[in-house]
Formats: sequence, C-alpha cells, structure tokens
Amino acid sequence: MKVGYLGPKNSFTDQAAQSCFKKEDLLPYQTIVSCIQAVHNGAVNFAVIPIENSLEGSVNDSIDRLFHLGGLKVLGEIVLPIHQQLLVSPGNTLIDKVLSHPQALAQSQQFLTDHYPDCLLEAVSSTTYAAQYVANHPEEKIAAIASKKAAKEYGLTILSEDIQDNALNQTRFWIIGLLDSQLTIVLGNKTKATLFIRLPKNAPGSLHQILAAFAWRHLDLSKIESRPLKTHLGQYFFVLDLLINQNEKLFENALEEIRLLGGVVTELGSYPVRVIKES
Amino acid sequence: MKVGYLGPKNSFTDQAAQSCFKKEDLLPYQTIVSCIQAVHNGAVNFAVIPIENSLEGSVNDSIDRLFHLGGLKVLGEIVLPIHQQLLVSPGNTLIDKVLSHPQALAQSQQFLTDHYPDCLLEAVSSTTYAAQYVANHPEEKIAAIASKKAAKEYGLTILSEDIQDNALNQTRFWIIGLLDSQLTIVLGNKTKATLFIRLPKNAPGSLHQILAAFAWRHLDLSKIESRPLKTHLGQYFFVLDLLINQNEKLFENALEEIRLLGGVVTELGSYPVRVIKES
Repeated sequence: MKVGYLGPKNSFTDQAAQSCFKKEDLLPYQTIVSCIQAVHNGAVNFAVIPIENSLEGSVNDSIDRLFHLGGLKVLGEIVLPIHQQLLVSPGNTLIDKVLSHPQALAQSQQFLTDHYPDCLLEAVSSTTYAAQYVANHPEEKIAAIASKKAAKEYGLTILSEDIQDNALNQTRFWIIGLLDSQLTIVLGNKTKATLFIRLPKNAPGSLHQILAAFAWRHLDLSKIESRPLKTHLGQYFFVLDLLINQNEKLFENALEEIRLLGGVVTELGSYPVRVIKES
Repeated sequence: MKVGYLGPKNSFTDQAAQSCFKKEDLLPYQTIVSCIQAVHNGAVNFAVIPIENSLEGSVNDSIDRLFHLGGLKVLGEIVLPIHQQLLVSPGNTLIDKVLSHPQALAQSQQFLTDHYPDCLLEAVSSTTYAAQYVANHPEEKIAAIASKKAAKEYGLTILSEDIQDNALNQTRFWIIGLLDSQLTIVLGNKTKATLFIRLPKNAPGSLHQILAAFAWRHLDLSKIESRPLKTHLGQYFFVLDLLINQNEKLFENALEEIRLLGGVVTELGSYPVRVIKES
C-alpha cells in the first residue's frame, strides 16, 4: 500500500499520516494538488491532506480541488493538536528574523507581536524547511517556527514553547481515495458526512430552503462554508459537514428532497473521525 | 484628506482607490493590517482593501481583522475587473520562470499549465514587484504576471494578453472608516449591507433559524460565509451580505428578532457599490 501526504517529511501532515499508516508506506508530495493527482492516477492508494485549522480556517486549495476535479471521496478524518515552537541553533538567543510556513507565522502572530515586534518575518515553503535552514546556518541570528519533532530531528533548541495563539490549536486532515476505494485500517464508526451543494437558483431564500431540509429533521450541521464557483463574482457552491450518528434514512430523505428541489448534491463521503490527543 | 490602500503603487487596489479618490490623497501601505491600523489610529481618514476575488474567494485577512479588531465600518464597495498579462523585457520571448503575487499565479493557473508546464513559478509580494524585477533583470529568462498599467509603467512587453482563467475575473474592494465617519465622495445609493453574526448556540438548526428571519421577509442574501472564531475547531462566526434596496424596516425587524433569539449581530455597514466596467 502507498499513501501520499503533503510533505516534506516531519510536516504536521506527516504526523497525521503516521498516526494511521505505517511509516514505510508514506510518500511525501510537494503540493496539495500533486497529492490529489497521485490518488487520481493510481500512483498511491490514499492521500492525507490538510482541510481546516482552528485559527486560520479552511485550506481552500484542498476544498476547491476536490470540488472542481471530482472523482474522489473522503474515507476518514484525523484531528491533530498543533503546537508551534520557536527554534534556534544551540547557543543562539539573539534573533532578528523568524522563518516559517505562512500558516505557522499566522498562528503565532500574537506571540511574535508581543515578544519580537521588530523581527523580520519570512515566509518559506514549510515548517520543516525553516527548521532545516536554521540548523544549516548557525551563524545567522534567525529562528524557525516548527514542531518539537523538527527540533529533535535537526538538533535545534526550543527558545519558546507552545507559541501558537491558542492552546486549543487543531488541524483537520482528510484521508482521500478513489470513489470505489475502501480504507484498510479501522478508524471507527462513520460519524460525519461532507456534501458539496449547488443551489437550485439564485433566489432569496434558496439557501434557507436547503437548510430547512436538514433542520426540520434535527440533522446536525457542524459546518457550512461558501466557495466561489469560479464563474462570476457572487456565484458559490456550499460545503456542508453533518453529524450522522442519527437516523441514516432521515439523512437520505433530506438529500433526496434537496435534489427534487433542483439542488445539485455531491456526497464527498461519510467517514469516521480520529482525534489525536497529543502530538 | 488621506486615504490608505494596500500597496505598492500600481497594484489593483491602487486602481480601485484611484477610481474614487484623488491620486494625491492616496498613501500605500504594505499589508492589510497596516491599512486597517492606519484608519484606527487616525493616520488616514479611509482605507481601501481587497475583500473578495471571483476566482480565489474571500481575502480572509481582511474579514478576520475587521471582525476581531472591531471599531470600523464599511462605507462603500468598488468592484474592479481584473485582467492579468504575461509581461517580459522587450525582445525576450524564451522564459523559464514566472514571478507574481500568489493570487495572480492562482488566477492564471490554467494558462500556465497549458502553455508553460515546465516553468518555475515564484511567489513574490506583489504584481508590481514582479514587473519591477523583470524590468531590472532584462538578461534573465523571466516573465511577470501583472496589469497593463504595470507593463506601461515599467516599459515591459505583453507576451500574452488577458491570461486569467476566466474573462469575468473581478475583485471586490471595501472603503473602510471609523464608526462615525462619512464618505465625502458620492458613490450612489446604499444597496448592500454586511453583517457579522454569532449564533445563539451550537444546536442543530440554529443557522437555519437565523436565515429564516431573512427568508420569510424575502430579504435577499447575496453571500454567506463562515470564519473560525479562533477559539475551538468547529466554532465559527458568519459573514452575511444582504441586498437592501427593499423595505428597510423589514431589515431592521429581522436584526431585532435575531438579537432577541440570542444571536450577536454586528452591522459592519450599509453601503453603495460602484462597479468599474474597464480597468
């Protein structure tokens, strides 16, 4: 079995993937789109990609690609706690520049403003790259924001611990596969479903009508989000997450009625969720 | 009068700002947050910032800062057509690298995949910076993605015209000011309102209940979006755009009822919209 993931090695996606798959089955890819394409063309059986962070919101690239490309489904979700560390070369304490992935810089914004207001912030391609760069340039007054795992891997010192803006910082990852694929590992019962919905018409109240189909059946909507259809400004599709540990027949009836009303519904998958307590 | 905008000079935000304000009143700022802070601390009277692109969706940084910082309102909206050009130094036709802002690279993705599949893509801080860099390095086999205005400004040749993935590519910009400020230019009648809403509780159907308050009054919701509250994963606030060229009393009644139901409503502003036909 081969499992692609958004690399490089030691990224948070790597940690999420390692919590479910054997290390020797994992293959890093450079971008989200290359992960998705690897599943499409059969180069890997599954891929693990980031979907949403509790501070920074959805990973639009993942959502948009899955919608516009089609042909893939979600087989499982992994929720990982994200702790960011400020890392320096051993002995270094003076820093005038901080390197990291833009998401990690954004997640540590308050800490950086409070403690390093004059530091230059430089966005690089990954937290791993930032850690590697700091390790390779011990003479420079630089720090990286990355994980404890990266600190260990590259022999760096943790100058400040858990610097992310919120102690409960978490990221959701999806395990994706082809429509006819089955997950060979056991994650648990299916508790969640994700749908892409295009409204029947751009009339006042049509979103309300769609939501009514779920609401009057007491089906629990855990997330709703709009993304541009990439046609005109003001044209969207909706991404809905529903908890489905309720009557499945009610869920099916709701979808059937939305389709009868002219809504276009794509079921991206019904899947189990594994929440990792500590990374 | 002073008006801040997301710079540098010749950016698309600059074009949007120039369509409403005098050139000599405009001041470029490097980031969205510095634009917003300049309004806050009185360094400028207004600021123009990007809000949403038809291909790439909302500018999360603008939405999140306005929500979390508070104390500002939207005074007007400008909708600008966005045409991207592939620019080279005069005489150059062979290129192996394309520089631009990440949004411009994303908007031209299909063109780049079709015509320059092997080109290296490099993200830089602005389309203006990309054009400047190409002009300053005529010996390199590089191109920039930027506007016609930038081509003229830096003496570059348009190698391919209008390369964005969709002919109807548009970006929405907001003119923001302090809560007690008034726009001194005439943009037209107020036709749109934007609200931030936090739901009363995380119970099944509470979003449906909120939308019902608008739907049964036939108030036209033109956009709904969720953004993380930055507390826990799964906790959101909603951004709603409504068309208000209808009975204003109905709109006020809807807001009053949502508040009675326990929803927290922030009125970000009721404002006119100016659509620019050609840039």
